[in-house]
Amino acid sequence: MAAEPAAKQRDQNEVEFGRIVAFSDGVFSIAITLLVLNLAVEKGLTEGEIDNELWNQRDLFFAYAISFAVIGRFWLVHHRFFSEVKAFDGRLISLNLVYLGAVVLIPFSSELLGEYGGTTTAVVFYSVNLAVVVLLGLLMHVDARRRGLTGIDPRSHRETQIRSTYIAGIFLLSIPLAYVAPDIAPYLWLVLFVDPSSRLARRSGADGEGNRAAGL
Amino acid sequence: MAAEPAAKQRDQNEVEFGRIVAFSDGVFSIAITLLVLNLAVEKGLTEGEIDNELWNQRDLFFAYAISFAVIGRFWLVHHRFFSEVKAFDGRLISLNLVYLGAVVLIPFSSELLGEYGGTTTAVVFYSVNLAVVVLLGLLMHVDARRRGLTGIDPRSHRETQIRSTYIAGIFLLSIPLAYVAPDIAPYLWLVLFVDPSSRLARRSGADGEGNRAAGL
Amino acid sequence: MAAEPAAKQRDQNEVEFGRIVAFSDGVFSIAITLLVLNLAVEKGLTEGEIDNELWNQRDLFFAYAISFAVIGRFWLVHHRFFSEVKAFDGRLISLNLVYLGAVVLIPFSSELLGEYGGTTTAVVFYSVNLAVVVLLGLLMHVDARRRGLTGIDPRSHRETQIRSTYIAGIFLLSIPLAYVAPDIAPYLWLVLFVDPSSRLARRSGADGEGNRAAGL
Amino acid sequence: MAAEPAAKQRDQNEVEFGRIVAFSDGVFSIAITLLVLNLAVEKGLTEGEIDNELWNQRDLFFAYAISFAVIGRFWLVHHRFFSEVKAFDGRLISLNLVYLGAVVLIPFSSELLGEYGGTTTAVVFYSVNLAVVVLLGLLMHVDARRRGLTGIDPRSHRETQIRSTYIAGIFLLSIPLAYVAPDIAPYLWLVLFVDPSSRLARRSGADGEGNRAAGL
Repeated sequence: MAAEPAAKQRDQNEVEFGRIVAFSDGVFSIAITLLVLNLAVEKGLTEGEIDNELWNQRDLFFAYAISFAVIGRFWLVHHRFFSEVKAFDGRLISLNLVYLGAVVLIPFSSELLGEYGGTTTAVVFYSVNLAVVVLLGLLMHVDARRRGLTGIDPRSHRETQIRSTYIAGIFLLSIPLAYVAPDIAPYLWLVLFVDPSSRLARRSGADGEGNRAAGL
Repeated sequence: MAAEPAAKQRDQNEVEFGRIVAFSDGVFSIAITLLVLNLAVEKGLTEGEIDNELWNQRDLFFAYAISFAVIGRFWLVHHRFFSEVKAFDGRLISLNLVYLGAVVLIPFSSELLGEYGGTTTAVVFYSVNLAVVVLLGLLMHVDARRRGLTGIDPRSHRETQIRSTYIAGIFLLSIPLAYVAPDIAPYLWLVLFVDPSSRLARRSGADGEGNRAAGL
Repeated sequence: MAAEPAAKQRDQNEVEFGRIVAFSDGVFSIAITLLVLNLAVEKGLTEGEIDNELWNQRDLFFAYAISFAVIGRFWLVHHRFFSEVKAFDGRLISLNLVYLGAVVLIPFSSELLGEYGGTTTAVVFYSVNLAVVVLLGLLMHVDARRRGLTGIDPRSHRETQIRSTYIAGIFLLSIPLAYVAPDIAPYLWLVLFVDPSSRLARRSGADGEGNRAAGL
Repeated sequence: MAAEPAAKQRDQNEVEFGRIVAFSDGVFSIAITLLVLNLAVEKGLTEGEIDNELWNQRDLFFAYAISFAVIGRFWLVHHRFFSEVKAFDGRLISLNLVYLGAVVLIPFSSELLGEYGGTTTAVVFYSVNLAVVVLLGLLMHVDARRRGLTGIDPRSHRETQIRSTYIAGIFLLSIPLAYVAPDIAPYLWLVLFVDPSSRLARRSGADGEGNRAAGL
C-alpha cells in the first residue's frame, strides 16, 4: 500500500474527520461493553451452587477489570492522539483500522484469560494481543508524525515512544515468564500502574495528563 | 493516581470533550441494548411449551424492565452532570471510566437477577452493583465540584448528595433484607419511584427536571 | 411522574439535545445490528447438513429482513420526529426512553418469530411488541405537540395520527388472525408496504417523504 | 417505492444529515465489532486441548481478519461517498438502509466461512453476501448521482463503477470456483488487495485515496 499523494486538512474536512473519530469511538465503546458478555450466568443451579459459580468466575471478573482498564486507557491514548492530528489521508485511516482490528480482539483474549487464567497459552495470547495494540498505536503515531500529519512537539513525541516501548516491553516480557510461571505472569502487569515514565515526565515539567494518556 | 496539574476548558476543547461524552453515550446505549440478550429463546419446543417457557421467563422480563429503567436514569444523570461540566482533566476522565465499568456490569447483574430472582445471592449482587454505580457517580460529582470543574450551584449540589445517598441507601438496605426475605427485597426498589427528595426539591422552587435527573 | 415545570429550548441547548438524539441513534443502530445474532451457525455439521440447516433457518432470515425493515422505518420516524422538536423536557426524555425500551425488545420478538414462525404465540408476541412501539411513538408525538415542544403543522400531525393508527391497527388485527391461522397472519403485514395513507398524503400535495417517515 | 418529490439540501439540514451518517457509522462499528463474537472459547478444556482448540479455530481467525478488512473498506467507501452527498431524500435513506441490511449480515456469513471454510456452501454464501453489498453500494451511488444528489465528477464516477464491477466480479467469479475447488476459492479474494484499477487511477493523475476508497 503506497503512500497517498496528498493529505486532507482536518479543519477543511471536519465532518469527514469527525466520522473517523466517531467510528473509532464506536468500536472502542462496543469492544469495552462486550467484555460483560464474557460473564455468563449458568442456568438451573441451586442457590448454593450459584455462590460457587460466582466464586469460580473470579478469574473472569479479574479479566473483565483488567481488560476494561486497558481498553479504557487505549481509548484515552487514541483520543489524545487524534486531538493532535491536523491532517489525514488514506494511510492513516487504514492504519487506524488495523489498530482497531487488534483492539476488537481484546474481548476474545480476555475471555481466554478469564477461562484459562493459569495457563501459558492464555497469558501468552493476551500478552501478544496487547503488545500488538501498543506497537500498532506507536507505528500509527510515528508514521503520522513523520509525514507531518500531527502537531505533537518533539519532547511529547519522544516520551510517547519511551512509554509505548515500556508498556509493550512489559507485555512481551511476560511471555517467557508465562512459560515458566503462568500463574505469576499476570501480576507483572500490575507494574503498568506504577508507570515510572509518567513520574519522570511530570518531574520534567510536562503536562502530565497529556503525556500519560499518550503513553499507554 | 495523582491529581492532574491543569484542567482543560471545555469551550476551548469542544471536540475532545465531545468524544468523552460520545464514548460514554456509546457505552450506555450498548449496555442498555445488551439487556435484550438476556432474553433467550430456547430451540425445539412444542407450541404449548413456548407459552410455558415465556411464562417462566417472567423474572427475566421484570429484570429487563427494571434494568432498562435504571440504566436509562443513570444515563439521564450522566447527561445532566456533563451538561454542567465546564472543564475536564485526566482524573475526571479516569473516574468516568471506572463509573462506566460499573454500569457495564449491570447487564450481567440483571441476568443473574432474572435467572435467580428469589435468591439472596442475586439480590445482593444486583444491589451492590447499583449502589456502587450511584456512589461512583456521587464521587465523580463531588470530586469535580471540589476541583472547580462544574458550574453547579450549592443548592443543586446539596440535593444531588441527598438524593444519591437516598438511592444508594435503598439498595444497601435491601442487602440485609435479601438475607431474611430475598423474595420481598426487590419490591423495596419500587420505593425509588416515589422519590420524596424530588417532591422536596420541587416544593423548594428548584428546577424539578434538572434536580431529579441529577439525583439518581 | 408529573409534568416538568419548564422545557429547554433546543437552540440554546444543542449539545444536550444532541446527546438525546445520539443516544437514541446508538440504541437503534445496536438493536438493528443485534438482529444478526439470531442467525446462529450450528457447529460440527457435514456439508450436506449445512445446506439443510440454512434452509431450515429460512424463517429466521425472513424475520431478520422484516425486523430490519421495521426497525429501520421506526428509526426514520424517530429521526423525522426529532428534527421537528423545538424544545425538550424531562417528560419527553422519559417517554423516549420507554419508547426505546420497546424497540430494544424487537430482536427478542424477532428471534421468537424466526424460531416459531407458524405458532400463535410467536405471531401474537411480535404483533404486540410492534403495536406497542407504534402506539408509544404516537403518544410521544401527541404529547410533545400538545405541550408545544414541536413545530409540526396541523395537517402533518393529523396524517401522522391516521398512519400510526393504521399501522398499529394492522398489527393488532393480526392478533385474532394468529389464533385462527398463525401461518397466514404474517402475510397481513405485507399490507404495510402498500401504505394507502402515503398515497393519500402525496395526492393532497404534502411532502411525501416527510409524512411517510413520520407515519410508521 | 416511488421517487420522492423533493430532496433536502444537506447544508440546510446538517443535523438531520448528521444523524443518517451517525446511524450508519453506528451500524458499521457494531457489525465490525460483533465479528469477535465468532471467536468463542470452549469451556473445560485441559491446557493441551486449548492449544489444539485455538489451532482448530485458525479458519475463524482468518475469517475474522478478512471480514474486518472488508467491512473496514466498505465503511471507507461509505464514508467517502457520503462526504460527496449534497442533498438527500427518502429514497437515498431507504437505499442506505437496505445496503446496511446486507452489511449487517456479514458477521453471520463470516461465522459460516470460519466454521465451514472448505465447503462450497460457506464460500458461496460469503461471496453472494459481499457481492450484494458492493452492488447495492453501486446502485446507491449511481442512483444518487443520476438524481443530482452528489457532487462527484464524471471521471471519479466512472472509476467507481469500474472498480465496483471489478470487486463484485471477483466475488461472483468465486461462486463457480467454489463448486469445483472450495478450498482454493478464498485465495481468489487476495486479488482484491492487488487492485489494478487503483494503480490505473493513480497513473491517470487522479487523487488515489479518494478513488480507491470510493472503489471497493
